[in-house]
Amino acid sequence: MADARPIETVRLEAFSDAVFAIAATLLVIEVKVPQAAAGELLHALLDEWSSYAGYAVSFAVIGVLWVNHHATLERVAKVDRSLLFLNLVVLAVVAFIPFPTAVLADYIDGGIANARWATITYALVMMAAAGSFALMWLYLGRHRELLAPHCEEHAPATAIRRALAGIAAYLVTVGIAILSPAVAVAMFALLTVAFVFAERPAPRK
Amino acid sequence: MADARPIETVRLEAFSDAVFAIAATLLVIEVKVPQAAAGELLHALLDEWSSYAGYAVSFAVIGVLWVNHHATLERVAKVDRSLLFLNLVVLAVVAFIPFPTAVLADYIDGGIANARWATITYALVMMAAAGSFALMWLYLGRHRELLAPHCEEHAPATAIRRALAGIAAYLVTVGIAILSPAVAVAMFALLTVAFVFAERPAPRK
Amino acid sequence: MADARPIETVRLEAFSDAVFAIAATLLVIEVKVPQAAAGELLHALLDEWSSYAGYAVSFAVIGVLWVNHHATLERVAKVDRSLLFLNLVVLAVVAFIPFPTAVLADYIDGGIANARWATITYALVMMAAAGSFALMWLYLGRHRELLAPHCEEHAPATAIRRALAGIAAYLVTVGIAILSPAVAVAMFALLTVAFVFAERPAPRK
Amino acid sequence: MADARPIETVRLEAFSDAVFAIAATLLVIEVKVPQAAAGELLHALLDEWSSYAGYAVSFAVIGVLWVNHHATLERVAKVDRSLLFLNLVVLAVVAFIPFPTAVLADYIDGGIANARWATITYALVMMAAAGSFALMWLYLGRHRELLAPHCEEHAPATAIRRALAGIAAYLVTVGIAILSPAVAVAMFALLTVAFVFAERPAPRK
Repeated sequence: MADARPIETVRLEAFSDAVFAIAATLLVIEVKVPQAAAGELLHALLDEWSSYAGYAVSFAVIGVLWVNHHATLERVAKVDRSLLFLNLVVLAVVAFIPFPTAVLADYIDGGIANARWATITYALVMMAAAGSFALMWLYLGRHRELLAPHCEEHAPATAIRRALAGIAAYLVTVGIAILSPAVAVAMFALLTVAFVFAERPAPRK
Repeated sequence: MADARPIETVRLEAFSDAVFAIAATLLVIEVKVPQAAAGELLHALLDEWSSYAGYAVSFAVIGVLWVNHHATLERVAKVDRSLLFLNLVVLAVVAFIPFPTAVLADYIDGGIANARWATITYALVMMAAAGSFALMWLYLGRHRELLAPHCEEHAPATAIRRALAGIAAYLVTVGIAILSPAVAVAMFALLTVAFVFAERPAPRK
Repeated sequence: MADARPIETVRLEAFSDAVFAIAATLLVIEVKVPQAAAGELLHALLDEWSSYAGYAVSFAVIGVLWVNHHATLERVAKVDRSLLFLNLVVLAVVAFIPFPTAVLADYIDGGIANARWATITYALVMMAAAGSFALMWLYLGRHRELLAPHCEEHAPATAIRRALAGIAAYLVTVGIAILSPAVAVAMFALLTVAFVFAERPAPRK
Repeated sequence: MADARPIETVRLEAFSDAVFAIAATLLVIEVKVPQAAAGELLHALLDEWSSYAGYAVSFAVIGVLWVNHHATLERVAKVDRSLLFLNLVVLAVVAFIPFPTAVLADYIDGGIANARWATITYALVMMAAAGSFALMWLYLGRHRELLAPHCEEHAPATAIRRALAGIAAYLVTVGIAILSPAVAVAMFALLTVAFVFAERPAPRK
C-alpha cells in the first residue's frame, strides 16, 4: 500500500487472497465425521486416512499456488479487463480444488477402476491450475506495458516454462495412475513438496 | 488507502470484497462427489456436467458483479446509512447465487417442467442482482453529494441503463426458458461472457 | 491505515470484518435445494419461503451488527486482552447466527409447539448478540483509557442503553412467540428494518 | 502498513487472518439442525449441548491461536520460503479444527470407548497446533536475521517453552480422557480459558 501500484492491483490481490484462503479452509468440509458403532471410532477414524492425506496435499497445493499468484501480481503494475478475466480463471480453478480432492479421497481405496479415474480427475485439475497461470503469463508477455518496471525481462518465459513443467509432471502422473493409482497419489504429495522448495522466493529490491 | 477517501468506504469495500470472494468460493460446495458403483466413476463424473457448467458460469457472474461493484464504490466518496443498506441488498443477492446455481444444476437434465422453473429461478436471481445495482445508482444519482469529484456526470444514468439492459436480457431468457431450458442455459453462459468483455474498465486518472 | 490508530485495532477490525462477511455468506448453505418430483419444482421452491425469509432477515441482522461493530471499534484506540476476548464473544455469537436461522426456517411452518421453540431460539441468539455488545461497552465504559479521543463522553452509556432496548424488544417477541410464532417472526423482520434505519451513522469529524 | 515491514509479511498476515476467520466461522456448519417430531424441538435442541460446547471451545481456541499468530508475525521482519511453509503448516492445522470438534461433539455422549477416542483426537489436533507454533519459533530462533529489531532476545525460547507447556497440558488431558472423557472435555474448556488470560498482550513500544 505504501508503494506506487494503483489501487486496482491492490484490490485484485486482496480479492484473490480471500479466494485462496477460503478454498484452502473449505477443504475441511470434505473430511466427514465417520459413522461408527460402539467401540469402532478409532478404526473408523483411521479408515479415513485418504481424507486426511487429501486435505494435507491440497492445502499445500493451494499454498504453493498462492505463493505463485503473489509472485505474479507483484510483477503487475496495471490490470486491464483481459487480465482481470484471466485472473478469474485462475481463481475459479483454485476454488474448484476441494471437489477433485474429495473425489480422490472417496475413491482411492475403492476398486482400481474408480481409483484410476479419481486420480486422473485430480491430475486434470492440477494441470488446469498450471495452465491458467501459463495463460496469464502468456498474456503478460505480450502486454509488457502492464508489467512493473522491476519485473525481470525473462519473467514471462520463466513462468510459462515452469507451468509447462508442472503440466508435464502431472501428465506423467496420469500415465502412472493408469498402472497404479496409489503410486500416482504418492507422486502428488512428492510433487507438492518439490514445488514448495523449488520455487524461489519473489525477489524484491 | 493512500488516497483521500474516508475509511468507511474502504471498510465497506473490504467487507463487500469478502462477501463476493466467499460467495464465489462456496459455489464448489454444491458440486457433490457422485456415488459410483465399481468401474462407474468416469460415467458418474461426466454425468455431473451441469454442476461444472453451473460452477463456471456463476463464478464468472460473481466476477463480473465484483468488477461492477468495484467500479461503483470507486466513484463513491461518502457512504450514508441508506447507501450502506442498499449495498447490503446487493451483497445479499450476490451471496444467494450459490442456491439458484445448485437448483439449475440439479434440475436442468430432469424433466422439462422442472428444468423450466430451475432456469427461471436462476434468471430471477440474476435480474435481482442487476436490479439491486440499479437501485444503488438510482440513489446515488439523487444524492450526488456522495459521489467522488472524479465521477463522470453521466455515471448514474449509464449504470442504470446497463442494469436495465441486463434485466431485459434475462427477461428474454425467461421467455426462451419456457420453450427450451437448454437454450436458455446456453444464453446464461453467453450473456456472462458478453458482460465480461462489454464492460469498460473503470477509468482512473 | 493512514491515521494514528495502532495496528492491533486495524487487524482486529479486519479479522472481525472477515467473520461478519463469512457468517452472512454462509447463510446460503442452509437454503437447501428441494427434492421435487417431475413438474413439482415450482411448488417445492415456493414451499421453502421460510428459508428465503430467514436468509434475508439474518443477512440484514448481520449487516446491522457489522455497522454497530464498526461504530464500536472506530471509537477504540487501544485493544487489551480483555477487550480482545469480549470481541471474540461478539464474533462467536455472530458466527452462530446461521444455526438459529436454519432452525427457524425448518420449524416455523411445522406444528405450533416446535415453531414456538424455534422462534424462542432465534430470539435468544439475538439477545446474546445485543448482550455481547453491551458487555463490550460496559468494559469500555470502565476503561476509558482504551477509547479514542474523538469518542463521545456518553458513547458507552448510549451503546449499552441501545443494547438493552434491543434485548427488551426481543424479550417482548419471545412473549409474542408463545402466543403466535408467525407474528413473532414478522416482528423479527420489522425489528431488523427498524435497526437499519434507527442507527445513526458513526460521526467522524 | 505505516511501518517499515515489507509487503510480504503484510500479505502473509492478511492471508493467515482470513484462514483463522474462516476456520472459526465454519465451526457453525457442524452444528446441525436437529430432526424433531412434533413438540420435541426443545428436547432435541437441548440434546445437542455437546455441539454448542464444542463450537464455543473451538471458537475460543482459534481465537487464542490467532492472537498467538499475530504476536508471532509481529516479531517477523522478513519471510523466507521455509517460514512461509511452516506458516502454512500452522494454518493447515488451524483450518482442520472443525473436524475434531465435530468428532468430539458427535461421540462425547455415546459409549465411553468412542468418547475416549473422540477426546484423544481433539487433544492430538490441539497438540499439533502447539507443535506447529513450536516449529515456527524453532526456525525463527535459528534464523534471527528474519526477526524484527524490536523482537525480544528471549522471544523464541519463551514461545517454544509455552508451546511445549501447551502440549504437556493436552498430554495430561489424554491421560484423563482414558479414565473419563467428560472430565477431559471440561479440561479443554478450562485450558482455553487459561490460555485466553495467561497470554500477555504483545508489547509494542
